[in-house]
Amino acid sequence: MDVDKKEQVVNPWEVSAKDGGKIDYDKLIDQFGCQRLDDSLIDRVQRLTSRQPRLPPPRRIFRTQVLDAYERGDKFYLYTGRGPSSEALHLGHLIPFMFTKYLQEAFKVPLVIQLTDDEKCMWKNLSVEESQRLARENAKDIIACGFDVTKTFIFSDFDYVGGAFYKNMVKVAKCVTLNKAMGIFGFSGEDHIGKLSFPPVQAFPSFPSSFPHLFPGKDKLRCLIPCAIDQDPYFRMTRDVAPRLGYSKPALIESSFFLLCRQGENGKMSASDPNSAIYVTDTAKEIKNKINRYAFSGGQDSIEKHREMDFWHISSLCWILTWRCLITTNHYPLWGFYLIAVEMTLKFFYTFLDTLKSFYNNLFFFFSQVDIPVKYLSFFLDDDTELEHIKKENANGRSKKRLTEVLTEMVERHRMARAAVTDEMVDAFMAVRPLPSMFE
Amino acid sequence: MDVDKKEQVVNPWEVSAKDGGKIDYDKLIDQFGCQRLDDSLIDRVQRLTSRQPRLPPPRRIFRTQVLDAYERGDKFYLYTGRGPSSEALHLGHLIPFMFTKYLQEAFKVPLVIQLTDDEKCMWKNLSVEESQRLARENAKDIIACGFDVTKTFIFSDFDYVGGAFYKNMVKVAKCVTLNKAMGIFGFSGEDHIGKLSFPPVQAFPSFPSSFPHLFPGKDKLRCLIPCAIDQDPYFRMTRDVAPRLGYSKPALIESSFFLLCRQGENGKMSASDPNSAIYVTDTAKEIKNKINRYAFSGGQDSIEKHREMDFWHISSLCWILTWRCLITTNHYPLWGFYLIAVEMTLKFFYTFLDTLKSFYNNLFFFFSQVDIPVKYLSFFLDDDTELEHIKKENANGRSKKRLTEVLTEMVERHRMARAAVTDEMVDAFMAVRPLPSMFE
Repeated sequence: MDVDKKEQVVNPWEVSAKDGGKIDYDKLIDQFGCQRLDDSLIDRVQRLTSRQPRLPPPRRIFRTQVLDAYERGDKFYLYTGRGPSSEALHLGHLIPFMFTKYLQEAFKVPLVIQLTDDEKCMWKNLSVEESQRLARENAKDIIACGFDVTKTFIFSDFDYVGGAFYKNMVKVAKCVTLNKAMGIFGFSGEDHIGKLSFPPVQAFPSFPSSFPHLFPGKDKLRCLIPCAIDQDPYFRMTRDVAPRLGYSKPALIESSFFLLCRQGENGKMSASDPNSAIYVTDTAKEIKNKINRYAFSGGQDSIEKHREMDFWHISSLCWILTWRCLITTNHYPLWGFYLIAVEMTLKFFYTFLDTLKSFYNNLFFFFSQVDIPVKYLSFFLDDDTELEHIKKENANGRSKKRLTEVLTEMVERHRMARAAVTDEMVDAFMAVRPLPSMFE
Repeated sequence: MDVDKKEQVVNPWEVSAKDGGKIDYDKLIDQFGCQRLDDSLIDRVQRLTSRQPRLPPPRRIFRTQVLDAYERGDKFYLYTGRGPSSEALHLGHLIPFMFTKYLQEAFKVPLVIQLTDDEKCMWKNLSVEESQRLARENAKDIIACGFDVTKTFIFSDFDYVGGAFYKNMVKVAKCVTLNKAMGIFGFSGEDHIGKLSFPPVQAFPSFPSSFPHLFPGKDKLRCLIPCAIDQDPYFRMTRDVAPRLGYSKPALIESSFFLLCRQGENGKMSASDPNSAIYVTDTAKEIKNKINRYAFSGGQDSIEKHREMDFWHISSLCWILTWRCLITTNHYPLWGFYLIAVEMTLKFFYTFLDTLKSFYNNLFFFFSQVDIPVKYLSFFLDDDTELEHIKKENANGRSKKRLTEVLTEMVERHRMARAAVTDEMVDAFMAVRPLPSMFE
């Protein structure tokens, strides 16, 4: 297949490994000019913040001189974001926010969160109104993570682009040729010009002058961006243009990504693929089913693909067998009966095939030492001893059960926190206002 | 020369005729899908507005169904603009504003004026602050034309882009592929992405929903755009995308352009070329000199080129002759004297050459029936009988003299009006506010 022959691609819209294998993070680190977040760096963070670093995914990738500056007494601000493409967030979305919250609390710094409703309007072909609605819904999930309203400014592009922001957009855009943008982002002539206009929109929150109500006269304030590694192209571009505009380069701390299903090894969670992730709106039963069925499953990656395959199997086989029935029996009035009987037999047969395939896949993953529930637990389980114990046991049933417990509890906690988020709270976080105690 | 071999190009950044000849307006009309503003159309405007149409350039080009709508009782609004690339406006800039003012008064409709400081910041590589300063300076010249503050909203892109405006920008951008933009505007891979982002910015004032403070709930209001024909690419694009967004296509009334100097036949006035135009800041003497020297002149098209040529002539000849002096006289102590003497002789010689060349050129233009002062007078002289008389006489001296009088008076009037424009008046025109009596 063509897909399998492709080189590794990691950009904001496509994450795929080479030859259908795993994402080669070493290659990315080399290509993007990052460094792995090793123990010495973690120790340094601990020393600077006087607390145990809470870095849920332990193999994050780091690219920053921001710590040097912090050590010299210079403050910084945090910038992260979310493209509101779905009603509810999944756990893959929450991880960067949980991590950002830790950073904000540890370093006592302000945070700006960009909701790129304009991006999703353009890429997902949503209406402006629907993108804005999703942005507000997602803001509730973000607020439910427990951010401090006196230190956090959430904004949507459709609301906030303009003024100082638009000026920085134009400044950034002037520094990037079309050829360069096409090289970095892989745009083609058939892409619309809105896509070409967007990279400066994601770039400009990296510069403090884009927030005159927050950082007046602090144009040299540094910015640290916690994000997933697929967002790197935007910030490679930003770091490239920053010195030409007289701004500091933003520092980055980038996370790798996992999936529940087999894509976990070579893709990222996708909000538009309901089985590729556990949502904060999933019930306990759904979480259990997803973990049991899709965590290193051999099932298809989405409900749609499942259904397509069901339909193809059943309908095509139905027709072949119905014709055989017709030829051998020649009893036309019984067609309806034959069809139902054949369909039921095939459904049973297909379910059996599915189970067989799932078993085969589980066997394959078991021998290839890939245990996705353990990978998930390494994100969410605070108790390192327990994690090591589960890893050593290598018992698939145990890790699935524990992951189900941990995630169910976490999702339940999040659901309660989200239910408490009112529209007034969203307005408060999104109000364009100074944050006088943001560095305290 | 390469330039002479080029096909006719008319876009917002380049206006050049084929093979160094005249702009072929018939070809443009065909290419852009317009129609000439003929007598029947002028009669219709007179009937609808109950007053004599004041259409200074009689050979304007029209493309509009807006009159049909007006006849049915539907109102419309006017939209025009200015790219603030220079401190002062020249007469070529004022013509569209004078014409727009006539339209506003005749049809009793509101007007929005866009100052594209973002465009000039990107194309002319001005700083954001300088573009904004020029925008305000230009606003004063525009206000001095006598617009009614209760019917006119002036805005600069750096101030106004955002909110409803930005939403329409994104909507427009979604409808235009990169290939299409490159085709319409002639962008290349070496152009920066800011240029690609700009066409939607010039497009969106064509849609009433971009001005929620002016036209709330009037999304179907039609827009009429008086502009120079080189702006057509923007509005071809806008008319193309309008139906896909559920908006009405804007109607256009486009003017052709003239220059004072020989470029008048194959180019447009340029604010960055001081001799290609008469500025509203020129003194009576400067106006007289420009008309006498450059109106169908054989002089170079800019002061820089004049100076370059002066310098080349004088300095190279100086050196040749100085060497000859040295060889023949061998009187080293007299070098300084020789140099001055030679330079003075050459200056005199060069002035003589220039006069000769100018005379030759005037002779050429006389026989080729091109009389630029008469073309200018057809813009600015209200008295048709006098114009016909001057045309028939074909007396170059008379037309130049009359043009000098007319323009000096006009520029003086404008200068006084501009001096009366205060910063408070600029703020009043640029305030984002409703205009309750804009249709009265």
